[in-house]
Amino acid sequence: MRIGVLGGGQLGRMLGLAGLPLGVQFTFLDPSEEACAAAVGRHLRAAYTDPDALHELARTCERATYEFENVPFQAAAELVRSVPVYPPPPALEVAQDRLREKEFFRSLGIPTAEFAAVDSLEDLEAAVAHLGLPAVLKTRRMGYDGKGQRILMEPEDLQAAWEALTGPRTGSSPLPTPRVDGLSGGLLAEALVPFRRELSVLAARDSWGEVVCYPVVENHHEGGILRLSLGPAPDLDPALEELAHAYARRALEALDYVGVLCVELFEVDGRLLANEMAPRVHNSGHWTIEGASTSQFANHVRAVAGLPLGSPRPRGWCAMVNLIGHRPDPAAVLRVPGTSFHWYGKAVRPGRKVGHVTVCADHPEQVAERLDQLRRCGVPLPARAAAGLFRR
Amino acid sequence: MRIGVLGGGQLGRMLGLAGLPLGVQFTFLDPSEEACAAAVGRHLRAAYTDPDALHELARTCERATYEFENVPFQAAAELVRSVPVYPPPPALEVAQDRLREKEFFRSLGIPTAEFAAVDSLEDLEAAVAHLGLPAVLKTRRMGYDGKGQRILMEPEDLQAAWEALTGPRTGSSPLPTPRVDGLSGGLLAEALVPFRRELSVLAARDSWGEVVCYPVVENHHEGGILRLSLGPAPDLDPALEELAHAYARRALEALDYVGVLCVELFEVDGRLLANEMAPRVHNSGHWTIEGASTSQFANHVRAVAGLPLGSPRPRGWCAMVNLIGHRPDPAAVLRVPGTSFHWYGKAVRPGRKVGHVTVCADHPEQVAERLDQLRRCGVPLPARAAAGLFRR
Repeated sequence: MRIGVLGGGQLGRMLGLAGLPLGVQFTFLDPSEEACAAAVGRHLRAAYTDPDALHELARTCERATYEFENVPFQAAAELVRSVPVYPPPPALEVAQDRLREKEFFRSLGIPTAEFAAVDSLEDLEAAVAHLGLPAVLKTRRMGYDGKGQRILMEPEDLQAAWEALTGPRTGSSPLPTPRVDGLSGGLLAEALVPFRRELSVLAARDSWGEVVCYPVVENHHEGGILRLSLGPAPDLDPALEELAHAYARRALEALDYVGVLCVELFEVDGRLLANEMAPRVHNSGHWTIEGASTSQFANHVRAVAGLPLGSPRPRGWCAMVNLIGHRPDPAAVLRVPGTSFHWYGKAVRPGRKVGHVTVCADHPEQVAERLDQLRRCGVPLPARAAAGLFRR
Repeated sequence: MRIGVLGGGQLGRMLGLAGLPLGVQFTFLDPSEEACAAAVGRHLRAAYTDPDALHELARTCERATYEFENVPFQAAAELVRSVPVYPPPPALEVAQDRLREKEFFRSLGIPTAEFAAVDSLEDLEAAVAHLGLPAVLKTRRMGYDGKGQRILMEPEDLQAAWEALTGPRTGSSPLPTPRVDGLSGGLLAEALVPFRRELSVLAARDSWGEVVCYPVVENHHEGGILRLSLGPAPDLDPALEELAHAYARRALEALDYVGVLCVELFEVDGRLLANEMAPRVHNSGHWTIEGASTSQFANHVRAVAGLPLGSPRPRGWCAMVNLIGHRPDPAAVLRVPGTSFHWYGKAVRPGRKVGHVTVCADHPEQVAERLDQLRRCGVPLPARAAAGLFRR
């Protein structure tokens, strides 16, 4: 079995590491000459929409998948004409548009923050009158890691945010001019919810329709980029976990999904609001490599390859810390008990995810202690971490 | 960091899978065009003693190691002149000669079965007179997976065994003519001990001299080939486990060892006798991929790369079943709870190790139940397995 993967970054690399033991081989289509997944498979270097490359992928692979959700939808749509593509392309289509995504959640009875489509400055003013402030203005498409978003605190912020995300209006076009690469199709305003914390739920569905749900994860962002995930989320009300699993299952079933799905959630006053979803393996699930009986990567490959899923059961308590533009000394890191070091084989550049560190322990307090030790050896932790994290 | 590996079979492949996340890259020197480790690194296809290939390995790698112990000693000896080779070549030298190996154990106060060097049929007769029958006649070099061995039950077996392992004596040479590929340096006779079971102990030592010992494993062979390992070994007297760890530590320290070492042991009347050692990751340690906090492969790479070792702590109870010349349906296998499927990407041929299946559980009885389920889906288990295994 060979799986073709759109994208050849670290998620592709970790899919390969999990899939090779299953006897699965990989071909990664990625325009970058640096695609770090090339260490575990064949690298087809071409644009995602290159017809020859897509034809070659379809010709040589029995299944296709994608490892980031901003891959052009038409690449997946083209592939699915000749090879099964999992997750199914409609999942990609929904996840690529923040407005459709929110409407999708709503259609399934999954609560979200209040939102409104914004196609003009007038729309934005109307939306804010309805939603109140603070709010957040987002591009509908191509935003990730905090890109394509502006926080609105005061009424005066509206015009600047509008212009930052769209550029000054040109001619008489009512639609914003793209400023974010590949932006098309307008903006979205959302009420900024005073959430207690950010959570995510990962779940997988196989081709027989069986679903497994991982423990809900607590996430910490800085500058819009995920810095730290705690899996399982400490101190989580079991009823909320059950609810998160129910939401994930609903989304999986509505899309006749095959593979791993991540839904990002806010915990607000004992409720959960869905924020967005990623139709792929997700950074907030990296802890499952060591921390669960079957990793998100192994379960994604199993699902895509037509194999049954493995248990998502946690093994103790874990934290995952992203290494962003920085390589701490691996020997110092590995001296902290329970620690694993994951290096993606990419050149270090500011703001770039180049690796992650996972630390596992028998109880949350031990995770906190070990995070403290990791901080002392140069592993960057968000300001709230480490010791305070588990002692709210 | 790039590590050069002599050998590119499944052990090299699993070293690569464990080492890539650490940011380590691999070059495998292997004469076979089928070397399955090529999926996770560069494959240098040449004879192990090819001077250009060894020069290339030394030039491009910061460390070297080996993944099977019948690699020509001179290849390691040549490499160590220009790059650190771990485990140190003297460990390879000792392990390649069953007589020196036994003498090494004895020199450290590690008990073995009675043995005697055999360089002629007369030696063999004298040895058997001293050791008694049954006994076993072995080549000193190049034996593995039961090759190069004959059991001696009756006095009449001696000449046939001698001839089978040496060929009819030619001319007046007192030394046996090689019949086993690469055989040199005579034979060894050993008392056949009525052991309760076969065990092995894996331990690792890093470049600071720190040692970690894995739980002792119970092994089941058929036709001289390992079929099943149970890790940790069920029902093991803790004092014996401590003794096994002390023996392993003694061997590691005597050799100023860096990397993973396996010592095979017999449990006889509440004592342990050392049988042989493998200066490398070992088939009886494959269960540690899922079954221990840090796998034998990760710890070998860590040690060789100059990184500190990870915890060998077991995660529940596991069994590892070799797939020999046979591929069961992976979907059926993976439907058994707690199971992992490992395929090496090799062509299936009779008698060839092409993969393994690991099953983990919370207690030994659950392992036995799951082994029973695995047998029903075509995973080959030795005759004594599965349900009876844990109920002596």
